[in-house]
Amino acid sequence: MSAPASPRRLRLGMVGGGLGAFIGPVHRMAARLDDRYEFVAGALASDPARARASGAALHLAADRIYDDFVAMAAAEQARDDGIDLVAIVTPNRIHHRAATTFLDAGIHVLCDKPLATTFDDAADLVDRVALSGLVFVVAYNYTGYPMVRQARELIAAGESGEIRLVQVEYAQEWLTEPLERGGHKQAAWRTDPHEAGPGGCVGDIGTHAFHLAEFVTRHEVAEIAADLSAAVAGRALDDNVQMLLRFASGARGALWASQVAPGCDNALRLRVFGSSGAIEWHQETPNDLPLAQFGRPTRLLTRSGAGLTASCTLHGGRLPAGHSEGYVEAFASLYADAATLIGSRLGWHPQPAGTDLVPSVRDGARGVAFVAAALASSQRNSAWTALPEAPPHSAG
Amino acid sequence: MSAPASPRRLRLGMVGGGLGAFIGPVHRMAARLDDRYEFVAGALASDPARARASGAALHLAADRIYDDFVAMAAAEQARDDGIDLVAIVTPNRIHHRAATTFLDAGIHVLCDKPLATTFDDAADLVDRVALSGLVFVVAYNYTGYPMVRQARELIAAGESGEIRLVQVEYAQEWLTEPLERGGHKQAAWRTDPHEAGPGGCVGDIGTHAFHLAEFVTRHEVAEIAADLSAAVAGRALDDNVQMLLRFASGARGALWASQVAPGCDNALRLRVFGSSGAIEWHQETPNDLPLAQFGRPTRLLTRSGAGLTASCTLHGGRLPAGHSEGYVEAFASLYADAATLIGSRLGWHPQPAGTDLVPSVRDGARGVAFVAAALASSQRNSAWTALPEAPPHSAG
Amino acid sequence: MSAPASPRRLRLGMVGGGLGAFIGPVHRMAARLDDRYEFVAGALASDPARARASGAALHLAADRIYDDFVAMAAAEQARDDGIDLVAIVTPNRIHHRAATTFLDAGIHVLCDKPLATTFDDAADLVDRVALSGLVFVVAYNYTGYPMVRQARELIAAGESGEIRLVQVEYAQEWLTEPLERGGHKQAAWRTDPHEAGPGGCVGDIGTHAFHLAEFVTRHEVAEIAADLSAAVAGRALDDNVQMLLRFASGARGALWASQVAPGCDNALRLRVFGSSGAIEWHQETPNDLPLAQFGRPTRLLTRSGAGLTASCTLHGGRLPAGHSEGYVEAFASLYADAATLIGSRLGWHPQPAGTDLVPSVRDGARGVAFVAAALASSQRNSAWTALPEAPPHSAG
Amino acid sequence: MSAPASPRRLRLGMVGGGLGAFIGPVHRMAARLDDRYEFVAGALASDPARARASGAALHLAADRIYDDFVAMAAAEQARDDGIDLVAIVTPNRIHHRAATTFLDAGIHVLCDKPLATTFDDAADLVDRVALSGLVFVVAYNYTGYPMVRQARELIAAGESGEIRLVQVEYAQEWLTEPLERGGHKQAAWRTDPHEAGPGGCVGDIGTHAFHLAEFVTRHEVAEIAADLSAAVAGRALDDNVQMLLRFASGARGALWASQVAPGCDNALRLRVFGSSGAIEWHQETPNDLPLAQFGRPTRLLTRSGAGLTASCTLHGGRLPAGHSEGYVEAFASLYADAATLIGSRLGWHPQPAGTDLVPSVRDGARGVAFVAAALASSQRNSAWTALPEAPPHSAG
Repeated sequence: MSAPASPRRLRLGMVGGGLGAFIGPVHRMAARLDDRYEFVAGALASDPARARASGAALHLAADRIYDDFVAMAAAEQARDDGIDLVAIVTPNRIHHRAATTFLDAGIHVLCDKPLATTFDDAADLVDRVALSGLVFVVAYNYTGYPMVRQARELIAAGESGEIRLVQVEYAQEWLTEPLERGGHKQAAWRTDPHEAGPGGCVGDIGTHAFHLAEFVTRHEVAEIAADLSAAVAGRALDDNVQMLLRFASGARGALWASQVAPGCDNALRLRVFGSSGAIEWHQETPNDLPLAQFGRPTRLLTRSGAGLTASCTLHGGRLPAGHSEGYVEAFASLYADAATLIGSRLGWHPQPAGTDLVPSVRDGARGVAFVAAALASSQRNSAWTALPEAPPHSAG
Repeated sequence: MSAPASPRRLRLGMVGGGLGAFIGPVHRMAARLDDRYEFVAGALASDPARARASGAALHLAADRIYDDFVAMAAAEQARDDGIDLVAIVTPNRIHHRAATTFLDAGIHVLCDKPLATTFDDAADLVDRVALSGLVFVVAYNYTGYPMVRQARELIAAGESGEIRLVQVEYAQEWLTEPLERGGHKQAAWRTDPHEAGPGGCVGDIGTHAFHLAEFVTRHEVAEIAADLSAAVAGRALDDNVQMLLRFASGARGALWASQVAPGCDNALRLRVFGSSGAIEWHQETPNDLPLAQFGRPTRLLTRSGAGLTASCTLHGGRLPAGHSEGYVEAFASLYADAATLIGSRLGWHPQPAGTDLVPSVRDGARGVAFVAAALASSQRNSAWTALPEAPPHSAG
Repeated sequence: MSAPASPRRLRLGMVGGGLGAFIGPVHRMAARLDDRYEFVAGALASDPARARASGAALHLAADRIYDDFVAMAAAEQARDDGIDLVAIVTPNRIHHRAATTFLDAGIHVLCDKPLATTFDDAADLVDRVALSGLVFVVAYNYTGYPMVRQARELIAAGESGEIRLVQVEYAQEWLTEPLERGGHKQAAWRTDPHEAGPGGCVGDIGTHAFHLAEFVTRHEVAEIAADLSAAVAGRALDDNVQMLLRFASGARGALWASQVAPGCDNALRLRVFGSSGAIEWHQETPNDLPLAQFGRPTRLLTRSGAGLTASCTLHGGRLPAGHSEGYVEAFASLYADAATLIGSRLGWHPQPAGTDLVPSVRDGARGVAFVAAALASSQRNSAWTALPEAPPHSAG
Repeated sequence: MSAPASPRRLRLGMVGGGLGAFIGPVHRMAARLDDRYEFVAGALASDPARARASGAALHLAADRIYDDFVAMAAAEQARDDGIDLVAIVTPNRIHHRAATTFLDAGIHVLCDKPLATTFDDAADLVDRVALSGLVFVVAYNYTGYPMVRQARELIAAGESGEIRLVQVEYAQEWLTEPLERGGHKQAAWRTDPHEAGPGGCVGDIGTHAFHLAEFVTRHEVAEIAADLSAAVAGRALDDNVQMLLRFASGARGALWASQVAPGCDNALRLRVFGSSGAIEWHQETPNDLPLAQFGRPTRLLTRSGAGLTASCTLHGGRLPAGHSEGYVEAFASLYADAATLIGSRLGWHPQPAGTDLVPSVRDGARGVAFVAAALASSQRNSAWTALPEAPPHSAG
């Protein structure tokens, strides 16, 4: 850990993520890994009984187990030892309301993606964060992988030349069958427009793929031509999306996201091709980054291995090369980065360089714009559709 | 070799493929590998001096080295020991004229792809072949790989369930720089509309990807939404194409073909996902075929390995598992299959089962239709465009 | 986490592992990951100033930062809230003395490997642990990987038939050059017989390879024929070892361990071949486990994927398939397992099944026996040498 | 093909390799591939009826189908158009007698390995070849792979520094069960000491591994400590061998060869580690050659790809990168190289550089010495055993 030393651990609260949840425990492991947080408060479920049972199982003090997040924000704001950061890990439809509640209470926020279920809500959050001066991180956790950040640095350094092509895909198999009809909680809310918003696969994992592409290339997608479909009969939301991409720079690309791809567990994969080189990254072998340069043998860069640029993360490395890091470690880097940002707001150390590595509320709003454009294009038989811009008043 | 025994080797002639050519020598290696042909005649280059030098270097008898293919067809037709099969390996614009010449002379044809530079020419060849009763093979050589044929069998046997998604791509790096300006012969004709026809990358390698997808799935693409581009400034033809696919069955897909993808040598890759399983094949590791089935561990099928269906090729296996076969072997299987078809026409043995494995003139015409639709879609800003059907009179 | 719920977190102390150490921080991450420990006390360095600075940086209370481990054991034994478990992460020569000190104080121990620098010391610890009734875990952390435990289960279930061959190797590159002469702390003590004991590479990583082979197969190595060498001139301890193995069952094998293998980061790899099947595991792709069975296609088992046996760990899974887990997660499973063992001693829940998954003091002594036999064989020009047995009084 | 042009194809004969054989058809494919031979004569089986049926099926002229190789040598020697080269592809016990017969007839020889069943016979052939002035190639076909030759060049160029470690292995699964008892012809002779000689697996595939190691490193093995075993009860010859290697240079190594390794089809794999770099090659992915250099990212060299040395073979490349070549192509390179050597003896072109790439009779004798030493060591409980040297009179 080369991160700035801190006088104390930050205090972390959580909304959602109680017993039976998938992503809540991951957030807590991520927050623990680098020992910069203590988890002290939560409104862990919408059902009060489950909220309390969850808090007790997680060793929270009884007075910091809350039945709802509004009460939690008020109580924590009032305490001297109130939480520094809240993690919002609820179904999508809650994100906006929970985030505004904690921002209003002066508490930093780390919110799951997609940021909101409408672009207006997302733009509203952009404005609120700008006015609040608070740290707001969106959980695009895949950008926490060291080799993703290395890829971004290599491209910025010109190792691939001018970017021409971007192929990004995110394939899973878990919704191949109509799992949502059998009482599977994760499947149920993710395929329910009321809970998930109007995008299914496109919002759940398409947004990760989209963010990854923009993050690594620093190129913005200008317009998309999308074909959303549901392979499983009767499913209310898309479970597969294919689209063409045009970047503002003129680069072309394609994006494929699917949750009905047998054999694919969590196959997020990015390839970027430029006028002189290319990189490829795959989430299931995340410690590797092949770098091809036209006319030279491909070099295999590895996490902590030789040939990396000096400092590609806010957060320093944890382990030597060959000692594989995975999903939790990448997620933990978002938490470590958030801690560093918050530490600088608390005056513990100066603002670090590289804060653009941390996914911001604006990145979250881009993801919501992406979902909106994908839906609009698909409804117009895949016509090219520009991503909506945040309104002028949210530029601040 | 489990192929039918033959009373003699077939006699092979060639148009194009002289000294300095790339694909001509590959055809000759392929024809030699299984010892079912002897190469005896050729009009190997458009330039007579080069044609003669090429013929001499290849040990052709002097009287069977021809200055042009019209003379060759006439002379070979007149000989008792005239060629049985002609391989046409010229630039695309010659294909139609050469093919009609040899069909008219009663000689079987193996023609390179794309079959023609216009859909009308392709449809004309479909008609002529039907009337002639001759064997006509189009060199979609990638379908000669045993594991490609195995994939087709697995899907036909229902191992993947109902097909939902098809992702196919063919990426190369060799045109990353404007090689055609430096006198590179292969690059020059392939980027010249006069020689190659109106499609660049889409015709040169996109057709391979398209055929592979239709061959393995036995599903026809109904319409495409394509975005063709030239990454290299000033290039007259496309060097990159991205497109969405809709199959007649309702399956969705995407196709990407590029010749400006650094790090990709000959990266033709097909993935097919169905309601219960999926297969993946990559040309650069052609002896492997992972078969995923939802709810089971992925199985790795290998060429000649355990678990294959009993007979997935006209042509039996050459080597045990682990003894890798490659590009020439796959190409050779087309030649062996053509020999088997011709042998049955000559009455040496019955018509074998599985002749649909051999790419036909209709498959060639499908490829030309694909190029036409891709160009039309791209000109209409990627609007969905149906593939043209062969006119009724060519249905015979 | 499917582990038994606990009324409180266990209290963890540490000997060694202060600022600048490699493995200490890994132990602390591992202990934190599953939230079953709080780290409360330490004698973190032999130098008191560094011990104190380390404790402060790690947020230890001032009265639980100790200058030496003897004082620490006494003080913690005396506290009502004294530590439950001590982690010993010092250079090898300290292991025996520190372990006996904490055992005498009635504190459970998790000790790094090799357990001791002499076989007598190791046998002594076996006796002491038996008498103490305490939990004693040796940090053979690689057996914490889920797919290593799965491999053990598959073999026990007969999926590979009768074991015939075991190939195990552990290759690293980091000592390719004489790093120890440049002030590199890790390299210095590991190549110094005074700190590391008589074995270099054979003790540092050979023991991991040896334990992995015995753990997965449940077969004991009977004798070895070893050739130890130092590739770097002037190095006092071996940096490379090759050996033949004979198992008591008659199975054969080979072991290779090296720290002078360029290109190998942490390449621990095990292959076991039986009369009907085989498994292969590689630490750098730890979530995969190919299972070959003669006459069937190889199946790729993956962590949390389909086809696994119902419960292959004390510790349940953390993440779905495709969300890679790595080195820290495997290490954390040892800590979680230790917590489960300690919890059952504290009466929180019954003794769980599967305690043989946790590397014990006897496993630690086997590793020291392995080092002794390897050194003896190598000194006798690779003559076959039996592993020493623990003396009878340590059988209890 | 950049090989020297030839005024005519060479005439090839074959001993062994009739209908039902495995390796004979491979030799014929290999000889055909580059079109430098015509196959014109054969004594294809020990049984005359099978010999004749085989010759007819292969389109040999009736007068050049022989019942035995003695008659063949005499008749071919007497013809003006007699064979230039004979391929000897019989069971091992015939090699010496057939080779001497054709050498005496002044005919160049390409002989399968192991060269002979006794070291005396091998040494005798070394002498005879020296006296004859004829070309004699031993079918160590794996050294025909372009990337094997590239590896040899890289090491000779110092890219790996001083060689320290060599790990070589050759694992197959096909004899996992007692196949020889079921009438499997290949298994029967290879496990029969009368046909195969005193070595089983060690001779059949161990010799390939041994030659590969010496070929790539140009380092000679000085002594070995071997443990031969038969995993299948009742098998008369070894089916598994593990050994330690010491090279004359001081480098260490290990060799493992097995035919009872489920999941391994033809897994010949070499790793060489030096003081500054390392290479790795695997027969089942033969077009790849990772080159690691300490302190730099590993580079992936590929056949025909960027970064190769200018000319690493006698025989030029056949196909561009990404168009995979395999087993037959590598085998064909031995035939092409033999043709080049013979062409220079015939005065068609000068002696080419790089003739040391072609496995010679001395290389064949080294393989027999290796088998003899392995057997001797194993009989002495794996004592270190020097390889026998050819007697002085065979030094010529």
